[in-house]
Amino acid sequence: MKIYLAGPEVFLDDATEISRRKVEACARHGFHGLSPMDGGVDVNAPEASRLIFEKNVEMMRASDAIIANLTPFRGVSADPGTVFELGFCFALGKAVMGYSGHPENLVARTRRALGHDAAHSGVLSDGLHVEDFDLPDNLMMAEAINAAGWSMILPDAPVADPWRDLTLFEAALKALKFSTAIPRAARQGDGNG
Amino acid sequence: MKIYLAGPEVFLDDATEISRRKVEACARHGFHGLSPMDGGVDVNAPEASRLIFEKNVEMMRASDAIIANLTPFRGVSADPGTVFELGFCFALGKAVMGYSGHPENLVARTRRALGHDAAHSGVLSDGLHVEDFDLPDNLMMAEAINAAGWSMILPDAPVADPWRDLTLFEAALKALKFSTAIPRAARQGDGNG
Repeated sequence: MKIYLAGPEVFLDDATEISRRKVEACARHGFHGLSPMDGGVDVNAPEASRLIFEKNVEMMRASDAIIANLTPFRGVSADPGTVFELGFCFALGKAVMGYSGHPENLVARTRRALGHDAAHSGVLSDGLHVEDFDLPDNLMMAEAINAAGWSMILPDAPVADPWRDLTLFEAALKALKFSTAIPRAARQGDGNG
Repeated sequence: MKIYLAGPEVFLDDATEISRRKVEACARHGFHGLSPMDGGVDVNAPEASRLIFEKNVEMMRASDAIIANLTPFRGVSADPGTVFELGFCFALGKAVMGYSGHPENLVARTRRALGHDAAHSGVLSDGLHVEDFDLPDNLMMAEAINAAGWSMILPDAPVADPWRDLTLFEAALKALKFSTAIPRAARQGDGNG
């Protein structure tokens, strides 16, 4: 069974090393990890962004599942590249799983970041509401994972280095391994997909 | 031809009115707009988030295209619910189109919001890089729209009220209408899809 490894840790200086550790963790659980770092595209090449996009799409199509690092990134919510990939994989019927290094739900996080509009209860300082469903992020992401028979995996306290700490990633691998939502043949794959 | 209308303006107090104006604009161009506001789910119902998710997924499956408001929302990038929907529709081969009320590219916007790590050139204050491709947002979103034969529609200057101003939305409708990427039969639809 092949798992696409999504998350903004591809933007770290040591992204290659993190990717290698994730692929190794997959192998320990009998999975084959497909990392965006393995696309082999030179980011300085002409049309690099198109080539990276095409490689990622190709890897997602070849995958049976996605594990997404949905830790809030440069705002109240997850990295949008990762979220696009979660939506892409969900549409194609892949097993979708995700984790976040932050335990708080979206409404608490957003209210703390933005503050209320004092003149208008329920509306935040940017003039819009926040959906109030006790979910860890926007409902499209959280409910996609729920629909797959899981919940987004969350820690008890904020993870100090959510881009390098693979504890929650390993928990996601275990959930995939023992899930009844995945066909038995795929779960018992030999790591070559 | 049916168009799914995606964007965080569903979180406005006057979301129903904005939705109505968008559906009307679709009709003027011979399209049938499907709005998440038309799902009819009571947000206070038990399991409302699951029901909204299922309605949105159903509407997207029924659509031929998506027009997404990808204006930065509560962070440097677009609303993640909208981005999930863009990825979902792209995976299913729908025509994907988007616009943003902010003209600046992702790298400039992110560098301004976060600042550099002085000790480490190229890395921002949160310890990660930002992809530098002169694209308006994360490459997965921007290149999905490019792959459909378009570019994300951008203004010359920041739009004052990007959740209510439908100028760019209308430009997206015109691009869809005259695009050769869409089968002629669908383009000449009578507005009933």
